[in-house]
Amino acid sequence: MYYAEFSKKFETISGITITPFKKDSKEIDWNGVKDNVEFLIKKGVKVIVPCGNTSEFYSLTIEEAKEEIKRVVEYVNGKATVLAGIGYSVGTAIEMGNYAKQVGADSVMIHMPIHPYITNEGAIEYFKNIIEAVDLPAVIYFKDPDLSDEILFQLAPLERLVGVKYAVNDLPRFAKAVQTVPVEHNVTWICGTAEKWAPFFSNAGAKGFTSGLVNLYPEKSFEMLEALQSNNNEAAWKVWQEVLPFENLRAKYNNGNNVAVIKEAMKQIGLNAGVTREPVAELKAEDKIELRNLIDAWGLTPQSVN
Amino acid sequence: MYYAEFSKKFETISGITITPFKKDSKEIDWNGVKDNVEFLIKKGVKVIVPCGNTSEFYSLTIEEAKEEIKRVVEYVNGKATVLAGIGYSVGTAIEMGNYAKQVGADSVMIHMPIHPYITNEGAIEYFKNIIEAVDLPAVIYFKDPDLSDEILFQLAPLERLVGVKYAVNDLPRFAKAVQTVPVEHNVTWICGTAEKWAPFFSNAGAKGFTSGLVNLYPEKSFEMLEALQSNNNEAAWKVWQEVLPFENLRAKYNNGNNVAVIKEAMKQIGLNAGVTREPVAELKAEDKIELRNLIDAWGLTPQSVN
Repeated sequence: MYYAEFSKKFETISGITITPFKKDSKEIDWNGVKDNVEFLIKKGVKVIVPCGNTSEFYSLTIEEAKEEIKRVVEYVNGKATVLAGIGYSVGTAIEMGNYAKQVGADSVMIHMPIHPYITNEGAIEYFKNIIEAVDLPAVIYFKDPDLSDEILFQLAPLERLVGVKYAVNDLPRFAKAVQTVPVEHNVTWICGTAEKWAPFFSNAGAKGFTSGLVNLYPEKSFEMLEALQSNNNEAAWKVWQEVLPFENLRAKYNNGNNVAVIKEAMKQIGLNAGVTREPVAELKAEDKIELRNLIDAWGLTPQSVN
Repeated sequence: MYYAEFSKKFETISGITITPFKKDSKEIDWNGVKDNVEFLIKKGVKVIVPCGNTSEFYSLTIEEAKEEIKRVVEYVNGKATVLAGIGYSVGTAIEMGNYAKQVGADSVMIHMPIHPYITNEGAIEYFKNIIEAVDLPAVIYFKDPDLSDEILFQLAPLERLVGVKYAVNDLPRFAKAVQTVPVEHNVTWICGTAEKWAPFFSNAGAKGFTSGLVNLYPEKSFEMLEALQSNNNEAAWKVWQEVLPFENLRAKYNNGNNVAVIKEAMKQIGLNAGVTREPVAELKAEDKIELRNLIDAWGLTPQSVN
């Protein structure tokens, strides 16, 4: 019953926090993390995700990732659901998950295994062993198109599995997956590829979506959510049109721009984003100009942020 | 001068060690690691690589990976060049690299960054910062086809960069890269995709290749090396024909079988391979039979191993 209720918490926007790094030392700017979490809370974001990909999870050491989870829990202070990203080897993921539990995170998002050689059977064991060892509701981040949805079908009966963040943009495949997992398994399907794909995933059965945009323009993300939840197609396509150039800029260079666009946009409108860490470089000059034009068109001048 | 000489050490087979795990606990079997390293040394392998992908690097915790480097250095005992795999975030890679130096590894192989969002400029900074911080000759493991070879061209002048393990099977691209980097930069090009691709890479300028097969059938790997080094095409194609079904079995399920085939083959011929860890499952029954037939055809019955 607890897990069934919990799964409904993800029928909203999952806001992936960015991790601000200081300009020269590239250390984490914890004040910046705090500012951004408080901005998300103030804007009504109900699920906050530290250690996601847009948080530059893989640019953090394990210790830094753990500290990010701890601090975000502290800054959220019970005002939203914290979904903490964990991953790497099974041993490391369990260690991170137990730490997340200990410091008060509400749930864990398990990243895809990063091993270049994965079998479907091995992936099932990977997620199962982590879910069984970490006493928190879990969401699987499903991103690798070469793996089978059979992994999700096998894991769906686990009580602790409350959601799947699906990030393979294959809509027929996604729809089939949603329709295959029995409703009584209480798995909330989340579009893992943000506002650009949210309308399509929503149509196919997703009840929420992840967002990076929410870090700077939560009003627009909520417009999308409300349009989708009320089946207001006209409103959804209007928002979609507005955010598409932004999301396309993030997708540039094989998604190399994903985080850099968010951080640069935050900086341009006066939020505390810091710089990116390797292997992500800052935005190229021409992309900065394109981004500035988008932000101006949105009316997000520094004065309008409050 | 030191680095120029050092780079020549990779004009051979780089033997990627497997990591044997115990059947139930899935702990590392250090006796197994020792047995396998001693087998490689006895068979004349001159470059030994702990923490490569075939070592299931990403299934190890950071602490286990560091211990694997330490133990392999100890077991090799100066009889071969140890090329220690390091990776993850810049901070973690530097920590692992400095540890490798401290425990006596000869050189480091830097894995690709695992971040899903990579820019070419960011990747250059990633490798550069690691190479500059770790005082050992370095090899870059270049595996992501979406990144540009410009990364290698920018890094090639670094004195410590002595080799590139190239694992993108695009031969015109590889040949162009080899021809673009000046010889005086002392970069040894290594075929990163083993015996199946070694003849093609050799033709295009590779001076060595990595091997998993070497863990069980080093004689065959050396036949390939000698054929390529003496430009004996006929001999090279003969070996290639013999190993192709084995390498194709490893490539099955989008390379999901990569490690499992090596471990199962070692087990079948009486070597100490242990089981795989998640997210790699053991070989399917039909693949085990196919593998057994290959091993029988090679005459690698347990009695013939010495």
